[in-house]
Amino acid sequence: MGLILASASPRRSAILQQIGIAHRVEISLVDESSVQGSAQDLSRTLAEVKAMEVSLRFAKEACLGYDTIVFLDNEPFGKPVSERDARRMLVSLRGKTHEVSTGFALCQNGDLICSGEERTKVRFVNFSEAELDDYIASGEPMDKAGSYGIQGRGARLVESVQGCFYNVVGLPVARTLELIARNREIINHVR
Amino acid sequence: MGLILASASPRRSAILQQIGIAHRVEISLVDESSVQGSAQDLSRTLAEVKAMEVSLRFAKEACLGYDTIVFLDNEPFGKPVSERDARRMLVSLRGKTHEVSTGFALCQNGDLICSGEERTKVRFVNFSEAELDDYIASGEPMDKAGSYGIQGRGARLVESVQGCFYNVVGLPVARTLELIARNREIINHVR
Repeated sequence: MGLILASASPRRSAILQQIGIAHRVEISLVDESSVQGSAQDLSRTLAEVKAMEVSLRFAKEACLGYDTIVFLDNEPFGKPVSERDARRMLVSLRGKTHEVSTGFALCQNGDLICSGEERTKVRFVNFSEAELDDYIASGEPMDKAGSYGIQGRGARLVESVQGCFYNVVGLPVARTLELIARNREIINHVR
Repeated sequence: MGLILASASPRRSAILQQIGIAHRVEISLVDESSVQGSAQDLSRTLAEVKAMEVSLRFAKEACLGYDTIVFLDNEPFGKPVSERDARRMLVSLRGKTHEVSTGFALCQNGDLICSGEERTKVRFVNFSEAELDDYIASGEPMDKAGSYGIQGRGARLVESVQGCFYNVVGLPVARTLELIARNREIINHVR
């Protein structure tokens, strides 16, 4: 018995560790591109599907799933498929405010216990072409929703945030702690 | 020639490194308790005094100084002097919104080139006594303005932020990048 983080993101595991939530990592086998659903609910749907898939393989253990998507107005930005795609996203986000949506879900034994979504607003500075070129060249954008990492060099692009900072990294802290507190009986976590 | 960070905080040096600003650290010899000034301007005054003192010892090199103070309404909270003091601060901040003020200053050759202050709002959750006890026992509050570290286990106490997240850690990123860009001729920094 224990808590499983159903995510390949080392950043999510690091946040859980930072806030003292004992867990182990099992990566879901879901092909995310095959998951259907409305764009607005997509982060929650993907979090549910990932937590569910892992919970079916590790019965009895509580599984936490997450998914993070960036929205500019209502347009979803996932991970870039190329440097050109990363550049397109970053140019779109420059000088504007977007929302970072992280869906979360808790599953056990193939049952969905609960799920939700947290949004944080992020305002980008009006960065220069040289700054953009340097950031693309750093390689950091390539595995990140919206093509930036606020916990890395991408902090240079950010003017301000409104909401949970760690939600932008990929794991909403207050919501996750609430979820764990409400389901203490099925999660044996070390405080 | 180069950029000196006039701060003993490893967190500030880590943020500069994260955003790619080459620097070295020289700790100021200022006795902060002897510095006079109005509470509202104190973070800026202290940043100026620290940057100035270091710049007098390392002439020609540009020196960046910082100081961080927490304000609840208009009451300043610095670093706690005891666990009891840390508890008093955290109980005061619980369930409320406070402001984190980080002053910054750039000096060279004993001249103040420019300075400023950035404020970020932080809302705390209404945490339990057990949470408070655990956090005090962790030792983390003891060297931090306002008795918490948002970049550590203290993330558990935070519901949301509004403004620059890294300003809460101790170094406002966008303001620092602006400062460096405006004074490029006196700072030989590696982008």
